[in-house]
Amino acid sequence: MISGRGSNMVAILDAIRDGRLDAEAAAVISNVESAPGLLKARERGVETLLISHKGRTREEHDTELVAQLQKRGVTLVCLAGYMRLISPLFVRSFHNRVLNIHPSLLPAFPGLDSQRQALEHGVKVSGCTVHLVDEELDHGPIVMQCAVEVRQDDSVESLSARILEQEHRIYPQAIARVLSGDFRVEGRRTFFSE
Amino acid sequence: MISGRGSNMVAILDAIRDGRLDAEAAAVISNVESAPGLLKARERGVETLLISHKGRTREEHDTELVAQLQKRGVTLVCLAGYMRLISPLFVRSFHNRVLNIHPSLLPAFPGLDSQRQALEHGVKVSGCTVHLVDEELDHGPIVMQCAVEVRQDDSVESLSARILEQEHRIYPQAIARVLSGDFRVEGRRTFFSE
Repeated sequence: MISGRGSNMVAILDAIRDGRLDAEAAAVISNVESAPGLLKARERGVETLLISHKGRTREEHDTELVAQLQKRGVTLVCLAGYMRLISPLFVRSFHNRVLNIHPSLLPAFPGLDSQRQALEHGVKVSGCTVHLVDEELDHGPIVMQCAVEVRQDDSVESLSARILEQEHRIYPQAIARVLSGDFRVEGRRTFFSE
Repeated sequence: MISGRGSNMVAILDAIRDGRLDAEAAAVISNVESAPGLLKARERGVETLLISHKGRTREEHDTELVAQLQKRGVTLVCLAGYMRLISPLFVRSFHNRVLNIHPSLLPAFPGLDSQRQALEHGVKVSGCTVHLVDEELDHGPIVMQCAVEVRQDDSVESLSARILEQEHRIYPQAIARVLSGDFRVEGRRTFFSE
């Protein structure tokens, strides 16, 4: 699910195409008609759906999303720059089966503009986090994290670019881990076969 | 300044002794008489002082600390397991000249028992932070950080041990950076000659 350029979506689709990720992409769904990621998905031969949130409650919108996902037998939902909170209804329908990626080492710098938050806080290490989505923003159990050095001459742009490189690397890996048979969650901790 | 075993203090003194850190240790001060670090400092030929906080206000205690430090011409104060908050009086007397080390990637997991906090939160990356001390706990501008991987079979003990190794490595390096001529602080960001 995307709302914009979908660069992480492209990284996931390319990992599948190149055999680095053993999975099938059922569909790419955007809530925004102009999302450039939709074209990139179609170019890669993946079905795309526009399911707009406009003029609907979150529950109405998520009810249609869940119906479309279930119709396709989707077992894992990956948010990739999807700029809407998902509802408790959605979380319950795909319990521990919704992933998101966030450009900081959570729990540090949740919310918008994480790279700017990190720079302004003056951290020397930031990174990115793939996590299961629960009902709180940027909060669910963590699947993978990758540290990225913050350089003292970094701008928001240069730091964001280096973090994004790692996002593209770890998101497909995290998906592979969650799809592996032995994935389990205990409290906030996640465990995988290694 | 220590309150206990002073393992980071030993790392600093040994870095000075081995020529990896160009500095002079003026004194090791403990607020706790039984702190095992006092003996290790004396074994390394460094003056030790016991300045107990018992039966005194924080301001009375810190007034004596500041007086003893100033008497020795100390330019940088390093906290190494010093288990007391320092007062605004102390912070003002050594503005941007008090360092502390903390076993997490701040701003994540401030306060006590950071390694347990990190494990229970389920992070996959933790680490340690050397920061300037201001009037809030574990809060001042960050000088250095080092990421440490959290393994899924980690206990508090095994994670703490791996973080401590990195603490011993980066604390002397952070001191060297702060003692370098070009060190400056802008907002929360720190800059060094590299």
